[in-house]
Amino acid sequence: MSQARNVAVIGLGSMGFGMAVSLARAGFTVAGADVNAEAAQRFAAHGRAAATPAAAASGAEIVVVVVVNAAQTRAALFGRDGAVEAMSPGAVVVSCATMSPKDAEALAFETEARGLLYLDAPISGGAARASEGALTVLASGGEAAFAKAQPALDAMAKTLYRLGDKPGVGAAFKMVNQLLAGVHIAAACEAVAFAKRLGLDLARVYEVITSAAGNSWMFENRVPHILEGDYAPRSAVDIFTKDLGIVMDMSRDNKFPTPIAGQAFQMFLMTAAAGMGRDDDASVARLYAEIAGLSLPPKRDAP
Amino acid sequence: MSQARNVAVIGLGSMGFGMAVSLARAGFTVAGADVNAEAAQRFAAHGRAAATPAAAASGAEIVVVVVVNAAQTRAALFGRDGAVEAMSPGAVVVSCATMSPKDAEALAFETEARGLLYLDAPISGGAARASEGALTVLASGGEAAFAKAQPALDAMAKTLYRLGDKPGVGAAFKMVNQLLAGVHIAAACEAVAFAKRLGLDLARVYEVITSAAGNSWMFENRVPHILEGDYAPRSAVDIFTKDLGIVMDMSRDNKFPTPIAGQAFQMFLMTAAAGMGRDDDASVARLYAEIAGLSLPPKRDAP
Repeated sequence: MSQARNVAVIGLGSMGFGMAVSLARAGFTVAGADVNAEAAQRFAAHGRAAATPAAAASGAEIVVVVVVNAAQTRAALFGRDGAVEAMSPGAVVVSCATMSPKDAEALAFETEARGLLYLDAPISGGAARASEGALTVLASGGEAAFAKAQPALDAMAKTLYRLGDKPGVGAAFKMVNQLLAGVHIAAACEAVAFAKRLGLDLARVYEVITSAAGNSWMFENRVPHILEGDYAPRSAVDIFTKDLGIVMDMSRDNKFPTPIAGQAFQMFLMTAAAGMGRDDDASVARLYAEIAGLSLPPKRDAP
Repeated sequence: MSQARNVAVIGLGSMGFGMAVSLARAGFTVAGADVNAEAAQRFAAHGRAAATPAAAASGAEIVVVVVVNAAQTRAALFGRDGAVEAMSPGAVVVSCATMSPKDAEALAFETEARGLLYLDAPISGGAARASEGALTVLASGGEAAFAKAQPALDAMAKTLYRLGDKPGVGAAFKMVNQLLAGVHIAAACEAVAFAKRLGLDLARVYEVITSAAGNSWMFENRVPHILEGDYAPRSAVDIFTKDLGIVMDMSRDNKFPTPIAGQAFQMFLMTAAAGMGRDDDASVARLYAEIAGLSLPPKRDAP
């Protein structure tokens, strides 16, 4: 496996940065690139900061692409100074952005046409787990792609699901998760604002619901942001206008109705339209509060 | 506390029956009544089967009313042969049905006007926990009502939340929980049917989601019913047309929009309209499957 010791990470946002650091800690030689030169420079303490995806991918057997969506993944791989032009036959692209199965299949097809391997590998777990090498990876792809990517997956993930032998399956699982996650965030925000309208003590609501049948992973995780008035983006509203937007596209493409997700999508859009797109996704609760003239715990200033 | 050893339970459905059995096991002398004479007769092995709420409540210091809604609670208390006419001053009504805070306040007002005590005490936990004396009770009411009801609460509940000193607060907490529970069931059904449309292995979807951020208490609890094709009603679709219907009423009364709950409410209504109102609430998934021509695991026959 010595030839797999060189890894590139394209995209050094909070997730990609943590993953790159986990790879470096596991002994890989890591090169990182980001469209934001400042993010790349911050990475210089952990590995080689490259100016372009191609420069990062040069000499790497594993190229982890952890950007926001399919379009950015396409640009990172096939755009000007894209990674594929610098990759050698048999190297693997590990694609982590959330996207539709259709986009994952198309990117895999084009990557494989260049003699490269492709692993559809969306991730779950947040920035903290990324930096601990404790992500969950929802992966699908061929045997060779898994074999080539395995050492890097071991360094980045606590749980690796092998969900199928074709790219697109991992993406589909991720989108089912995002449908639920988005609905649960919007529902948590609706319920907490409703509770405030009823005059209930919100700390008590949190205590009761988290030990009752109305609980969700997202309720438990996001409602403290509301209670603390802390809307610094751990994950922004715009992430869910994007992800539930993909669910809407898939809904239409597959002629399958998703009315609950559709309503949640509209709530994220309203929150973004009201100017909170870059704030934490728990800001949907602030939208309800603004509409109804409620006083939630006040927004804290950024430190 | 010897005068509190006589308890009446009005409503011997799966919840009330379990609670009455828990009270008998704890040493109370229990009288039970139900509009369904057969349910009352089944209870005769555990206590006194009474023909009417008044006959059950005669001599009881604690009267637990565990029927479906506010209207049935009103009938059990104030209708013909209702419980209050047989209760002595200072006895307590423990009202467990899910209802709006407004209804809980009105019932408390009328009960207290008869020189009786009233505890607003909606419950959570299902029939199995009811029979184990392990319910969660979301209670509010005056000090005297809590003191009088305490021995029975100890026998029925594992967790007792004292949420306020006025009836209506317990009901409000319960409705916030039901809003979330209803949305989460509908979302779970939408997500599982969507996953089926995408061709995913549903057992794998259950495994992945229950260990990911898309999880909810309801997803974890209800999706196995879909996987097993088991729609025998643990909790029926009609319970959520009722409970989300109460949320809709409260929404309108409080001029507070609840679009996510509203969409979930419509999905339960559609499922009931399609003839599945008395089936398990996971039947919302069958509605999606029928609409889209999907094959979920087939419905098992009732044993």
